Amino acid sequence: MLSHAFRILLSANLWVCLYAHGTGLICSLLLDFPIATPHGLKNCRARFKNRVSCSGTKDRGRYAMSQYVRVGIEGLQDFLSAVFERRGFTASDADFIAETLIDADRHGIASHGVQRMAMYDHKLRHGMIDPNAHTSVVSDAKACAVLDGHSGMGQLISRDAMRLAIDKAHEHGIGIVSVRDSNHFGTAGFWARMAADQGFIGVATTNSNPLAVPTHAGLPALGSNPIAFAVGRGDDQFVYDAATSTVSLGKIEVLAKLGEPIEGDWAVDEYGAINHDSASVMAKITASHRIGGLTPLGGSGELNAGYKGYGLNLIVEILTGILSGGILSWDMKGQHICHCFAAIDLEAFGGAELISERVASLSSRLRTLPSVDGHPVLVAGDKEKAAAQANSDSIAIDPVTFEQLGVIARRVGIAAPHAEYLK
Amino acid sequence: MLSHAFRILLSANLWVCLYAHGTGLICSLLLDFPIATPHGLKNCRARFKNRVSCSGTKDRGRYAMSQYVRVGIEGLQDFLSAVFERRGFTASDADFIAETLIDADRHGIASHGVQRMAMYDHKLRHGMIDPNAHTSVVSDAKACAVLDGHSGMGQLISRDAMRLAIDKAHEHGIGIVSVRDSNHFGTAGFWARMAADQGFIGVATTNSNPLAVPTHAGLPALGSNPIAFAVGRGDDQFVYDAATSTVSLGKIEVLAKLGEPIEGDWAVDEYGAINHDSASVMAKITASHRIGGLTPLGGSGELNAGYKGYGLNLIVEILTGILSGGILSWDMKGQHICHCFAAIDLEAFGGAELISERVASLSSRLRTLPSVDGHPVLVAGDKEKAAAQANSDSIAIDPVTFEQLGVIARRVGIAAPHAEYLK
Repeated sequence: MLSHAFRILLSANLWVCLYAHGTGLICSLLLDFPIATPHGLKNCRARFKNRVSCSGTKDRGRYAMSQYVRVGIEGLQDFLSAVFERRGFTASDADFIAETLIDADRHGIASHGVQRMAMYDHKLRHGMIDPNAHTSVVSDAKACAVLDGHSGMGQLISRDAMRLAIDKAHEHGIGIVSVRDSNHFGTAGFWARMAADQGFIGVATTNSNPLAVPTHAGLPALGSNPIAFAVGRGDDQFVYDAATSTVSLGKIEVLAKLGEPIEGDWAVDEYGAINHDSASVMAKITASHRIGGLTPLGGSGELNAGYKGYGLNLIVEILTGILSGGILSWDMKGQHICHCFAAIDLEAFGGAELISERVASLSSRLRTLPSVDGHPVLVAGDKEKAAAQANSDSIAIDPVTFEQLGVIARRVGIAAPHAEYLK
Repeated sequence: MLSHAFRILLSANLWVCLYAHGTGLICSLLLDFPIATPHGLKNCRARFKNRVSCSGTKDRGRYAMSQYVRVGIEGLQDFLSAVFERRGFTASDADFIAETLIDADRHGIASHGVQRMAMYDHKLRHGMIDPNAHTSVVSDAKACAVLDGHSGMGQLISRDAMRLAIDKAHEHGIGIVSVRDSNHFGTAGFWARMAADQGFIGVATTNSNPLAVPTHAGLPALGSNPIAFAVGRGDDQFVYDAATSTVSLGKIEVLAKLGEPIEGDWAVDEYGAINHDSASVMAKITASHRIGGLTPLGGSGELNAGYKGYGLNLIVEILTGILSGGILSWDMKGQHICHCFAAIDLEAFGGAELISERVASLSSRLRTLPSVDGHPVLVAGDKEKAAAQANSDSIAIDPVTFEQLGVIARRVGIAAPHAEYLK
């Protein structure tokens, strides 16, 4: 029924409204989150435009719809934590989940940060995420294990799993843990960094809803299936975190929201042709019978080796859905997500300090390479670290998300977060 | 001196001769292999054109320069094995090295097969590969180890390393072995399959000469750094084996040989502009001061996420050059190559048979997807398996390589292999 309603909205040319908030709004719309209806959005927009306080927050400044607000991390942490507590989590678990979301925003990965609150709130209210679930061990043999998350919160399951992988790495030198029946775990990089911060190599992957198209096909049989890999510490920590599709769907959602075309070869239609129309890509990939989708890294066809991204995508599928005995991206409908985590002890390789120094040395050499186009030569994680430094005490939140936080606040009966100042 | 001679050859417009055999010829030229001089090539070509037997082989059929010959695997195995024995390897090691080269040709990966004999022979004659080297253990801690190959034959060092990784996987559930001071190990996929054939997940990577360009740079600081991953058995074995650059240099060498441009965004010049001129790419990447080079998977710049291929490339560099304490691709000059191997026991994940069945099931589903362009939807390894079936008793060898085998045969004092029939 939801998808039927969605099609009606599409035919009514309501894309501008639909994409006023990218991922969050689409999620909200599909998941019946009140603020995300075109009417609700319109009302909220009007209020923003009129610079009138909305959503019951006090004195949070005056801003226009087009403006993001900045919210202090400390207050936001307290707010999010209180929301999760009200939704049934223990105080420490609620704190942790809040921390993971703010961490994403701090690192400039807003798509995986606070703007997901609408989705989490919807899933918690509708029993799609069980706050009382306990991760169980399906099998455990030396350095390897399979865990079942029993539809719990992805962040808590992932913490259990990476902790186990690290424990196994302590004992065996390396640990690998595949997980089934989890939920969205935030950024893959968070989990890889968790191991790297403790002196290990950290690896994290997940499967996802079907969004990406195999080479020579026109249907999305693959998840976006990111791979994260982190090693080293501090400013020179190497943190790779990227979907095995050319881009994640979030980038296309943002363009659709802005009414802009896609410049790159990021998506194909059901006939395999590159689709530069961001709204069209979104319509096709969110239809009840999904068609077209994201290209694998390397693009469509074989010309620029798209089959490599396709193959990497399947490696993730094997490590997650297949090793864990869970479901595949192909069959996924927003739930029962599968992950895989690994940690490697660096003791046999000279120790964490030495490896961290070597990584730092290579990174430094790379950063000194002359740029050919005015953009500096960087190393994986550099952009995110710079963002985290810039966002050390507050993060930017788009106005629709901020409005959604107000709705959630009212639902759980607490005060909405305070917007510290305008961006 | 060699590079000086190379530049003179370039200026004399001898590219057609230079590229009459792609990788092998370039290697041969740079490594003073007699047949690869323009004069030698011209003479050999004339002999092929006149359909006159050359190189002292008996009754190997009549063929033109443009024609490949087919050589029976049994006889070729004996021939190659005899060559390696004469170069100082034990009979069983010589057999094994020969087997790895023929395996590459059988799987349709001619760039890594028998055509490398000129390079191996050169390096063995000049002490760059030590046939008497013994792999030593630098460090060993539970599931992890570092080996030193002491400039031995890459295939023997890799066999030692993957055997150790598998032993460790038996004992700990997983094993990871990083290797320094090795030589070219053939195809990465061979080593991943070695583990998969025994019921493990197999992973193999290597660094290489600097050939690929970091995002926003114009100089080759990265190797082609392939990743191989294999799991499952038989016809449905999943075998991913691909450089983290858009293509390997061999593909561009073939185009240069044919005098054809590059259609894809495979390489950039020193200013970061896509370079479609295959001869120009080769000249720049083989110059004494290398400039330009291969694009990372995803292409140049950030538009189609080339930074992802760049990041994956660095992951390989970390697992190989950095973990092993060996040298980086950036500093490599054809020697002291570093690898990394891993094996994962599937016991904790339900066992090898179950995982193999799940992989086969997913592969079958993918292969049934409708094609959008007439090319079937395949899974990693499908093309190579089809080639191996087609080449079950003989392989195709290009005429220049076949000529080189004749030269090697004369050098070591044995009969050249017999060409069974024309392609």
